[in-house]
Amino acid sequence: MRRMSELRTVEWVHGHVKMIDQTRLPNRLEYVTLTDYRQVSKAIKGMVVRGAPAIGVAAAMGMALAAKANRAKSRNGLLKALEVAAESLKSSRPTAQNLFWAVDRVLRQARDAPPGSDLAEVVIAEVKKMAEEDVNASVSMGRFGAALIRDGDQVLTHCNTGTLATVNYGTALAPIRTAVREGKRVRVVATETRPRLQGAKLTTYELLSDKIPVTLVVDGAVGYLMKSGMIQRAIVGADHITTSFVANKVGTYLIALAAKANNVPFYVAAPSSTFDLRAEKADIKIEERDPKEVTFVNGRRIPPRGVVAYNPAFDLTPLELVTAFITERGVFTPEGLKADPSLLQPDVG
Amino acid sequence: MRRMSELRTVEWVHGHVKMIDQTRLPNRLEYVTLTDYRQVSKAIKGMVVRGAPAIGVAAAMGMALAAKANRAKSRNGLLKALEVAAESLKSSRPTAQNLFWAVDRVLRQARDAPPGSDLAEVVIAEVKKMAEEDVNASVSMGRFGAALIRDGDQVLTHCNTGTLATVNYGTALAPIRTAVREGKRVRVVATETRPRLQGAKLTTYELLSDKIPVTLVVDGAVGYLMKSGMIQRAIVGADHITTSFVANKVGTYLIALAAKANNVPFYVAAPSSTFDLRAEKADIKIEERDPKEVTFVNGRRIPPRGVVAYNPAFDLTPLELVTAFITERGVFTPEGLKADPSLLQPDVG
Repeated sequence: MRRMSELRTVEWVHGHVKMIDQTRLPNRLEYVTLTDYRQVSKAIKGMVVRGAPAIGVAAAMGMALAAKANRAKSRNGLLKALEVAAESLKSSRPTAQNLFWAVDRVLRQARDAPPGSDLAEVVIAEVKKMAEEDVNASVSMGRFGAALIRDGDQVLTHCNTGTLATVNYGTALAPIRTAVREGKRVRVVATETRPRLQGAKLTTYELLSDKIPVTLVVDGAVGYLMKSGMIQRAIVGADHITTSFVANKVGTYLIALAAKANNVPFYVAAPSSTFDLRAEKADIKIEERDPKEVTFVNGRRIPPRGVVAYNPAFDLTPLELVTAFITERGVFTPEGLKADPSLLQPDVG
Repeated sequence: MRRMSELRTVEWVHGHVKMIDQTRLPNRLEYVTLTDYRQVSKAIKGMVVRGAPAIGVAAAMGMALAAKANRAKSRNGLLKALEVAAESLKSSRPTAQNLFWAVDRVLRQARDAPPGSDLAEVVIAEVKKMAEEDVNASVSMGRFGAALIRDGDQVLTHCNTGTLATVNYGTALAPIRTAVREGKRVRVVATETRPRLQGAKLTTYELLSDKIPVTLVVDGAVGYLMKSGMIQRAIVGADHITTSFVANKVGTYLIALAAKANNVPFYVAAPSSTFDLRAEKADIKIEERDPKEVTFVNGRRIPPRGVVAYNPAFDLTPLELVTAFITERGVFTPEGLKADPSLLQPDVG
């Protein structure tokens, strides 16, 4: 088994986008190579690549594919083509803030490039830089977050927030990895994360490959585990953070409530690109996915025919339930961020 | 499709126990006929029959099978045989209070029977009476609970608490059924209830057959639905209630926390036989079931090989989170019950 922490989830290789096909895991570790931004949009929509930071980098690379394909065009023609690609990519998942941030950053770089420069080169260079920044952000989150984990802790996490959710190393799994590398004995409890079972399929896979002890539980067991004193820390990732809410995989809000009720610290690990702390920020749009994700498991129908399902992919956790945010710039309390939102102004390249 | 509210989950027929095989639902409605108390123990353990009140009645009928099989013995010999059967039946599920209550009630009836009486007859008569009482309790819970449901409510429920969890009609589904019969427009949100998916497989089946509108959601979606104002009431069943906690299907505690945080009334519907309000009552034993219930769905493995799962079947909800208990004797607040536990002293026959 390859150690997941040594792989790259999404990569720019020889002018193409190479990514792990996450719909095949844990049974097969397979890569797909994408040559057109429309393939990238489709891969994001179909969750071949998922996890907010990984989606952001993949979308940026989709922009690079569009730039490359339209290299021969005039500056204005190329910018128009990039705008079309941007619209397609941004519409692939409605909740992931990193997606909007990444696409807009690439677009801005292209628009701001000095006259006469090779726009395709500018975009490709920017995208490579963003992938490196993503890795560095994960390592920094790991370092800052590890300080919050004690030797002997059992840490609960939700969904997948590891290498597979980023370019490498992870958001919420990064502090756990770093704590283990620092010699702390840390055990993980992974929620299975219905409906798509990213916890059961991806998080266990990553931790097993890195030889970090992990126990799988159903999503409903979180309250019992916390009440029974089995959990010392909860760390989750995020898809979108405003001054009011953390949008993250559905089920996160229940974990935050159970943590609060049982005095378990509840941390959210996310790079600055996940934050949108503008005061005028409108509501976060919560993606509703195909009800079949609920009614079918591994291709087999669960409820009787005719049953309707509702499938919100994310939920909203009030900032008051967050003990602290673990970011690549340090650890911040919700109060600290509200007082000075510029602390996490996203990098615009 | 047969209307579930017209069927009996478990029944004493021609000296045998006839029950719906719930492991076959929703694909097939099949019955099994059991002729030996050991078969009943096994059926309870394997969840052929489940739901606290249904387990109680099934176990009582197991006692009747034991009485019938040992009819020729002396009074003492028969009582001894009943004690052996009682031990077996009581060990089949460790959390269901109704199971202990039902077996002890039958045993007490046999011991207290006047000298010279036909003990097998006494036991069989008692067991038939218990099945009727169970139906009556459901109908009463329906009547008392329906008064708490308003026209237009969307009611969230967890696991299966309908006909299939009782002899007929249900605990938490009973108020919903009665409200609908009274002409109220009520829609139900059913949590799928991992790991065994009783919500997805059984509750949707029952409600569909009774033409009550139902929407299926994953367990993790409960917080989002409550926060979004989509749920006006939550009603769950119970397996064991003390003066401190409600033990019910794992995930219940999270629903109670989300209800509290969003001012949604949270009701627990259970007959008096589920309560054990003795002051000296020791802790509730939480059953831990086979981890394969988590790692396999419909016979197919979900996580990679080598992943360990932990599978507590129930959790504990503090009484403070319960708005009120719906019982066959009326509606009681936790405070009311604590002040006068005799209100729900279980019937001993």
